[in-house]
Amino acid sequence: MAKINQNFLKLPGGYLFPEIGRRVRAFSAENPPMPLIRLGIGDVTQPLVPVVIEAMTKATAEMGVKETFRGYCEETCGAYDFLRFAIQNDYRARGVDIDDDEIFVSDGAKSDCGNIGDIFDVDNVVAVCDPVYPVYVDTSVMAGRAGDYDAVNQRWTKLHYMPCTADNDFTPAIPDKKVDMIYLCFPNNPTGAVATKEQLQKWVDYANAVGAVILFDSAYEAYITDPAIPHSIFEIPGAKTCAIELRSFSKTAGFTGTRCAYTVVPKALERDGANLNKLWNRRQSTKFNGVSYVIQRAAEATLTPLGKAQTGETIRYYLRNAQTIKKGLAEAGLTVYGGDNSPYIWASTPSGTDSWSFFDKLLKEACVVTTPGAGFGPSGEGYIRLTAFGDAQATEEAVRRIQGIL
Amino acid sequence: MAKINQNFLKLPGGYLFPEIGRRVRAFSAENPPMPLIRLGIGDVTQPLVPVVIEAMTKATAEMGVKETFRGYCEETCGAYDFLRFAIQNDYRARGVDIDDDEIFVSDGAKSDCGNIGDIFDVDNVVAVCDPVYPVYVDTSVMAGRAGDYDAVNQRWTKLHYMPCTADNDFTPAIPDKKVDMIYLCFPNNPTGAVATKEQLQKWVDYANAVGAVILFDSAYEAYITDPAIPHSIFEIPGAKTCAIELRSFSKTAGFTGTRCAYTVVPKALERDGANLNKLWNRRQSTKFNGVSYVIQRAAEATLTPLGKAQTGETIRYYLRNAQTIKKGLAEAGLTVYGGDNSPYIWASTPSGTDSWSFFDKLLKEACVVTTPGAGFGPSGEGYIRLTAFGDAQATEEAVRRIQGIL
Repeated sequence: MAKINQNFLKLPGGYLFPEIGRRVRAFSAENPPMPLIRLGIGDVTQPLVPVVIEAMTKATAEMGVKETFRGYCEETCGAYDFLRFAIQNDYRARGVDIDDDEIFVSDGAKSDCGNIGDIFDVDNVVAVCDPVYPVYVDTSVMAGRAGDYDAVNQRWTKLHYMPCTADNDFTPAIPDKKVDMIYLCFPNNPTGAVATKEQLQKWVDYANAVGAVILFDSAYEAYITDPAIPHSIFEIPGAKTCAIELRSFSKTAGFTGTRCAYTVVPKALERDGANLNKLWNRRQSTKFNGVSYVIQRAAEATLTPLGKAQTGETIRYYLRNAQTIKKGLAEAGLTVYGGDNSPYIWASTPSGTDSWSFFDKLLKEACVVTTPGAGFGPSGEGYIRLTAFGDAQATEEAVRRIQGIL
Repeated sequence: MAKINQNFLKLPGGYLFPEIGRRVRAFSAENPPMPLIRLGIGDVTQPLVPVVIEAMTKATAEMGVKETFRGYCEETCGAYDFLRFAIQNDYRARGVDIDDDEIFVSDGAKSDCGNIGDIFDVDNVVAVCDPVYPVYVDTSVMAGRAGDYDAVNQRWTKLHYMPCTADNDFTPAIPDKKVDMIYLCFPNNPTGAVATKEQLQKWVDYANAVGAVILFDSAYEAYITDPAIPHSIFEIPGAKTCAIELRSFSKTAGFTGTRCAYTVVPKALERDGANLNKLWNRRQSTKFNGVSYVIQRAAEATLTPLGKAQTGETIRYYLRNAQTIKKGLAEAGLTVYGGDNSPYIWASTPSGTDSWSFFDKLLKEACVVTTPGAGFGPSGEGYIRLTAFGDAQATEEAVRRIQGIL
């Protein structure tokens, strides 16, 4: 009898967003009094910018002509040089020097966040922020690195949790024990917090000292407005011997439905006698065949000067939404975090209300979909997350509605 | 110190096709006397058909307009209903009834072949044909299911090998021991062999009897010309309780550079107390975010009547190439298999010549790139694989050149 991976059975319930989807669909079936406004899942609403549409249209036409048709991309793990060079230049513009064969293009940061675990041993100790993007935890569970779920403490027995709360300004503390793999995400999902160079330097120094690997998710770097905040872990001296960076076009260029991302694995990153760049290259060349040529051209277009200008306008549009939400909820009496260098607003629930109850109240009374903080981990209890990726008018309306019921 | 997955270090050398790429590049640098003709890697050369280009162009335009823009696909694991329904109808046309939530769309069959291992226990015994598509073996090694490499026997200690040679008509024998996971590929890569309904019925009966799971790769089903040969494992009674089917648009519609595939996991497939459809759903919803909207529209277009007609023309073009190779090599005195219901031709090397030597001879003397059979496993020794995916004129020229040096 084929045996299954028993770790899958340890996962309680479904992935967070499908659960929210189920509650929203159930409520929608009850004929809500107003149209729903969705500020829950972090999905963009503005169209792809003109330079991207032009690049995709041109690339599509090339695929219909024999002379310009593209089959398998035989370059590094299915990534075209033109895209890797564009990414390389984008790093260089921030003073970061990355070799082209340190860049791996994929269909999404979610895929890379989970798949990167393939190259690591099952017995590594994984550290995660709490609250945290659920994919880091759920994929650790699937790989057998999380141990068992302790329902009383709402924690996995083998994970090292780093609470991020208002008390510590949503900044995780360096572990007081030795950990092996550390997921960090800045600007943070869900809290919207950012990390300074000094804070990241402490992480890099810790990781180099104990031999840990930092898995740095900078999917939201384009939302940083403060020039002092680093956009990449590789702006920090020493990071190339301890960090892998995960990035995506989803939030920087509206690619949630277009699908392109990339991961940087430095060649200087060695652990346990092996070179992690080579291991990831082997994993990707064996289990992946690259991203569509048309989509790689679309991604390249976002990194041209015109692409940067056009996507920058969209990002500023979302950042204005973030301010609308932040100010509006503060006026309504909630304590609000994030939103300045991030598309996420992290708001305290009214005293005594747990996050799923507040989620349900906002859904049923204001017809606004948010994300309950508890879905991101035990320290997310007492908060909800709102995203700035909505339509501007709808976002203003959502804020008015929330103000009306508080 | 972060520990790595030691199984990766067991893999000898690189993936087969990069190794061929290295030899070809080295030879190219020596100024070969004739332009190279590539019949090695199974990559298509004909452009996407007009109906696909139209669908992609239209979908791209939709992405540039707010009202029709698409973000995350919230339907089953990032697959749009329109594509799942089109796939469902395609199965129905062959008398196979598949529920839409049994269909999972992905970026490629290579990804699915490897990732499907996530839901299975490490200790399952994996059976593979020999010769075999290397991805089944290499991903089993990475997952720790293959044991150690025995260089003398050129076999992994824990894999169960099923030799497919001229002696058994390239048909694997039902294992004489209990195995848990069985990779089968028909029409076969690399031998071009097909399986009859009776042969597949024996596999289904065996798998149901011992509780094994068949991972059935039917990526080349569109090349079947014999009406008696099944295109899907689900044409076989009992398959829904023992089989997962992996399919791709790569070879059926020229999508090697466009990237779309799908995997069918029946809801009736239970093992070890768990439902495999639910496990795969959880894996994909956690580690994957779906395929680009534009690409899903492209895939849908291939399944319309016009799409079927247009891609059918391209398939017949490649099948004519297959006959050109098959007849031409036979005339040159080689014993030749496959090519009738398959884009692959499997040819015996001249007596006493090993497959890498014959590969090198064809590369250096005829400037034709093939694939050495030994790259597919020990029973592939003594053969080379040629693909029918080239340009027709170049294929004819390649055959003439090979005839000239034999």
